[in-house]
Amino acid sequence: MSDAAPIIRKLAIIGGGLIGSSVALAARDNGAAAEIIIADSNAANLAKARELGLADGYHGTALSAVEGADLVILAVPVGAMPGVAADIASGLKAGTIVSDVGSVKSSVLKSLSPLVPAGVHLIPGHPVAGTEQSGPEAGFASLFDGRWCILTPPENVDAVALEALSAFWTKLGSKVDIMTADHHDLVLAITSHVPHLIAYNIVGTANDLETVTRSEVIKYSAGGFRDFTRIAASDPTMWRDVFLNNKDAVLEMLGRFSEDLTALQRAIRWGDGDALFDLFTHTRDIRKRIIDAGQDDDAPDFGRPHDS
Amino acid sequence: MSDAAPIIRKLAIIGGGLIGSSVALAARDNGAAAEIIIADSNAANLAKARELGLADGYHGTALSAVEGADLVILAVPVGAMPGVAADIASGLKAGTIVSDVGSVKSSVLKSLSPLVPAGVHLIPGHPVAGTEQSGPEAGFASLFDGRWCILTPPENVDAVALEALSAFWTKLGSKVDIMTADHHDLVLAITSHVPHLIAYNIVGTANDLETVTRSEVIKYSAGGFRDFTRIAASDPTMWRDVFLNNKDAVLEMLGRFSEDLTALQRAIRWGDGDALFDLFTHTRDIRKRIIDAGQDDDAPDFGRPHDS
Repeated sequence: MSDAAPIIRKLAIIGGGLIGSSVALAARDNGAAAEIIIADSNAANLAKARELGLADGYHGTALSAVEGADLVILAVPVGAMPGVAADIASGLKAGTIVSDVGSVKSSVLKSLSPLVPAGVHLIPGHPVAGTEQSGPEAGFASLFDGRWCILTPPENVDAVALEALSAFWTKLGSKVDIMTADHHDLVLAITSHVPHLIAYNIVGTANDLETVTRSEVIKYSAGGFRDFTRIAASDPTMWRDVFLNNKDAVLEMLGRFSEDLTALQRAIRWGDGDALFDLFTHTRDIRKRIIDAGQDDDAPDFGRPHDS
Repeated sequence: MSDAAPIIRKLAIIGGGLIGSSVALAARDNGAAAEIIIADSNAANLAKARELGLADGYHGTALSAVEGADLVILAVPVGAMPGVAADIASGLKAGTIVSDVGSVKSSVLKSLSPLVPAGVHLIPGHPVAGTEQSGPEAGFASLFDGRWCILTPPENVDAVALEALSAFWTKLGSKVDIMTADHHDLVLAITSHVPHLIAYNIVGTANDLETVTRSEVIKYSAGGFRDFTRIAASDPTMWRDVFLNNKDAVLEMLGRFSEDLTALQRAIRWGDGDALFDLFTHTRDIRKRIIDAGQDDDAPDFGRPHDS
């Protein structure tokens, strides 16, 4: 697919954070775009991006950055996207593809559709990849290697534009899937949004205990707790916007999680060891399938260094 | 501390799983014991331990393994410990230290105390270290490096025996803490037991969905879900026993977790972005403190390989 793909002539990335800077680095490394522009309204981030040499051009405003761009990728928190889309509308040429990297897709499709001028192709996207870190210095070119990028085009999408955007992400190392925005939001609610929420939640619970000191929580975190602190260290603004913009799917999945947890709680209270053992045996298999699918490494303990 | 420590002459490890085999390897590497015996009632595990050369002697029964031992470490699931303690009682010489590596301590102290003969020193212990893997081949010598080992002696503990056991774990690379069994169980409920329970739970929830296929859960697990599958792949028997034997503390911490989660759910339903943002900002700091304390690595994404 990537061989047949047209190179994007001019790529404008709005937002130079972890994902935006990684898109810039991956696009250059893989020859996916001839010219790469980064815009960031945060002067410090923009200066950092320039210092790192992430792009060919740097702009403090999105409008000037998109001039003549063939592909515009919004890499800002979901809540900031409508504002950016309104800012750039007058600068978009016919035939330009406008996409994004937000973790929620229905609200992006709904809010951006009326803002994108006729002749411009809106195709929301979501590379399912990242780390807990933020900012231009957190980005790296191989972030998307072997990870899935989900595109959620509107029903009347232009087939050529969709093919071009798919080819772009394939060149960056991603595997591309296409689904409706609503289905994306349901799938990511369970594979990403609720896991982040319960990680944030247990770290908060541990932080508020009176009977266990905070230093004890830190010292003995290797018992499992520390795993949760990684995703609970993710960008607060991004994740606030995810939950505000995928409310229905998150509440649905959270309801199921809580039901199941109540059943487990009951099994513990009544000493139902078989119920616990059955679940714990079942879940082991899913880990194996994720590793077999190449979606995680098989090194024990995430390959954490275990030598002093 | 480790310089002043007496070498254990004869160490008997009952149970050659991940922890038992790691204790054997660490004890040999660090010169903490002159002679190392492993007992395992599972013939396949024992043969594997022998094949790996983990010890100096191998026994199919715990009773024969403890003969002449100065330190006996029970490395079997918490539920199996009373049976083992009863089996070995007649073979323990006066002055021997009997300890364990169980993740729960009150029930171990209560159930083993009446089974340990007079003149034998019972000092329960818990090295807060491990991986999601099981069996003799999963063990490695550096597992305890820089991790905490918690000892929960009875009130009337022999000071010399306690010092000897502390010195043993220090030689294995651990930092040693001493606290009551009850406090240990409360601390580990939040730093280990409840995190494991909610990880098992969300993997189970994801596995039971009708609206999202299992292959979608696997494919898009890099969004956060895969992190939870690691500890949800831990040994089912061990963890069943943990929850059955630390019921009160787990239910207490689980109650607090659920209260907090309900509040978050409400904040999402009513669009209270500030409440979400405040928590998400707060939790980021805990990750930093765990890394500063040397209890996790600061590599992004747990240092997972990110090059194709």
